[in-house]
Amino acid sequence: MKKFRLFTPGPCAVPEEVLLEMSRPFHHHRTDWFKGFMKAAAEKLQQVLCTRHEVIIVTGSGTAAAEAAIVGIHGPGSKLLTIEAGKFGQRWGEIAQQHGISVTRHAVEWGDTISPEQVAELLRKDAAITAVMVVHSETSTATKCDLQGIGKVCQQAGKLLLADCITSAGAMPLKPDEWGVDVVITGSQKALMLPPGLGFVAISPRAWSAIEANKSQRAYYLNLNKARKSAAENDTPFTPAHLLVRGLVKALDVLLEEGLEKVWKRVASMAAATRAAGSAIGMPVFSKSPSDSVTALKPPAGIAVKDIRTDLEERYGIESAGGQDQLKGKILRLGHMGYVDEMDTILAIGALEQVLYKRGHKFELGAGVTAAQKSIAERS
Amino acid sequence: MKKFRLFTPGPCAVPEEVLLEMSRPFHHHRTDWFKGFMKAAAEKLQQVLCTRHEVIIVTGSGTAAAEAAIVGIHGPGSKLLTIEAGKFGQRWGEIAQQHGISVTRHAVEWGDTISPEQVAELLRKDAAITAVMVVHSETSTATKCDLQGIGKVCQQAGKLLLADCITSAGAMPLKPDEWGVDVVITGSQKALMLPPGLGFVAISPRAWSAIEANKSQRAYYLNLNKARKSAAENDTPFTPAHLLVRGLVKALDVLLEEGLEKVWKRVASMAAATRAAGSAIGMPVFSKSPSDSVTALKPPAGIAVKDIRTDLEERYGIESAGGQDQLKGKILRLGHMGYVDEMDTILAIGALEQVLYKRGHKFELGAGVTAAQKSIAERS
Repeated sequence: MKKFRLFTPGPCAVPEEVLLEMSRPFHHHRTDWFKGFMKAAAEKLQQVLCTRHEVIIVTGSGTAAAEAAIVGIHGPGSKLLTIEAGKFGQRWGEIAQQHGISVTRHAVEWGDTISPEQVAELLRKDAAITAVMVVHSETSTATKCDLQGIGKVCQQAGKLLLADCITSAGAMPLKPDEWGVDVVITGSQKALMLPPGLGFVAISPRAWSAIEANKSQRAYYLNLNKARKSAAENDTPFTPAHLLVRGLVKALDVLLEEGLEKVWKRVASMAAATRAAGSAIGMPVFSKSPSDSVTALKPPAGIAVKDIRTDLEERYGIESAGGQDQLKGKILRLGHMGYVDEMDTILAIGALEQVLYKRGHKFELGAGVTAAQKSIAERS
Repeated sequence: MKKFRLFTPGPCAVPEEVLLEMSRPFHHHRTDWFKGFMKAAAEKLQQVLCTRHEVIIVTGSGTAAAEAAIVGIHGPGSKLLTIEAGKFGQRWGEIAQQHGISVTRHAVEWGDTISPEQVAELLRKDAAITAVMVVHSETSTATKCDLQGIGKVCQQAGKLLLADCITSAGAMPLKPDEWGVDVVITGSQKALMLPPGLGFVAISPRAWSAIEANKSQRAYYLNLNKARKSAAENDTPFTPAHLLVRGLVKALDVLLEEGLEKVWKRVASMAAATRAAGSAIGMPVFSKSPSDSVTALKPPAGIAVKDIRTDLEERYGIESAGGQDQLKGKILRLGHMGYVDEMDTILAIGALEQVLYKRGHKFELGAGVTAAQKSIAERS
């Protein structure tokens, strides 16, 4: 017997009832039947994203949703500042460049983050900047930023703020309207507990004004004006992946039934337990500002991340993630999003201990799960 | 009891085994497990599309796939001729315009088509044209064009040929390599018997040369160069809707098991039966060059298409399509794609007769199903 467990930071485990919902027969999408799902999805997304802003549903990945927002907002006269502290931050700068958008790409050491004060300083230096794009939880380095603080800075400076919340929305505290986040971008396959295929963009009224004023926009499939016009009638401009929209409604119900505050607490507890365990078994936390939705641990000296991952998968069916690009071989990442709870974390840490022990790592067997147990108990 | 039957020209009925396949637990997509599905999907797509050209899988609708091809191929120095004989033909011209591509949009009366000779004439008139885009089966008017003939003309003139095969691929004879079709665009939710969410683009070597030469391409998510690079390793540049890729492999298996020639014959038989029935009950065929994948019938005088559709749905659970834009209220459309066979056509025609009879239309009850039965028998 080999049981399969998904601990990657997206795609994440999906509740069985969501998978089964998607296997039911379906009707055409230009029907009241489907519009009911679209309406429910848009409303429930607002609840889960803690926003009153309109939420646009895109059939595509989180990158598609981000590209729609970046090209929608930036026409002639606009200038974007991207904060790049990992692979995904870099991607948003690349998209802006590829579209010929005026952009300043600010690099931050991977594993570190930027402070609101530093953002304020960058804005002071260049008055031409009209918008800032940050990554709330940088998946590639398992690092979070102070989105609330950056929101305050951007509001004071009168700049639009776009946030990649792909691995924060539905997992970590996020209050876009209160914090002054104009554009929240996320995807289906992370904390929203769905398979990949949908991207979401929540857009503030002032961001919509920028989009409407941008007459040079070229995107057609990823055109937010078209999407908004259709969304007003609970519709989509192009044929949507309606099976996923249906699953989405069910998945959001599961999240809302638990209650968002409890979800955030559960995710934070899993992350804290993993960090405590990591320290106890000689796998220290990589990030200087660890995210709660995914944890990156450094491997013990002499044991390759690749081997740890292979052992986890082959012996216990656990799928984990390694590092990407410059972090390849330097970190092991475990996700805390989706259909997983604290006892799944205990299971994963137990497996990690077994694997390290077998590979000859010197540590006290059981120290990881014990540290995790204590961390969980303290928080519950 | 109300049984539900999907007869729209996309989304189309999906085999139960495909829906169930997609409800199975899934692994991460950056794994050999998923690469196996990608490899199988790409190979089976080549078989179903009768091509040796590379096939790119896009998470998005058919429009996303078409936009990827249009913007991928057309840089400075290129000029596109779009043949627009319906809503979808018009869309491809709109996309080219929105992207600032040099384009000549040639309008054809809806319900009619263009001949290869007419295409040759248009090409003779404007030597600057580098590519032609046609719709093989125009879903909005249920009309097919002579793609083989147009392919010959384009090859002789040395022009690239892009074909929207969204409602022809997997339903009607299509031999891109033999016919000289450089780009075949299609989607998941038509004859390929999958829910919506994936688009496909099969690209010839000379079209790839044009894409590689186009250094000004701005698309990021819909960038075919990125997709090709990943596809070479059975991967995707961005997180794919992997549940649909898994369903795709199963759906293509169902088609290939039947055999493509038999599929084409079955679809043609359903269309011929529907046309014969339409004539027999006073609902003549709308198109001057009827497609085999979808049939458009004109309503009898004094009976609104809207009422026919509502009755079909409420009394027999049959979802049909009306006309779009200028054809609103003027045609009733029934699809012949997906998980439907000739006896489903008999069922649909039976329902149509009952609805017309109840609405007071004067015709010989049973004449439609009789004509359809004879048509089917003659062809089998």
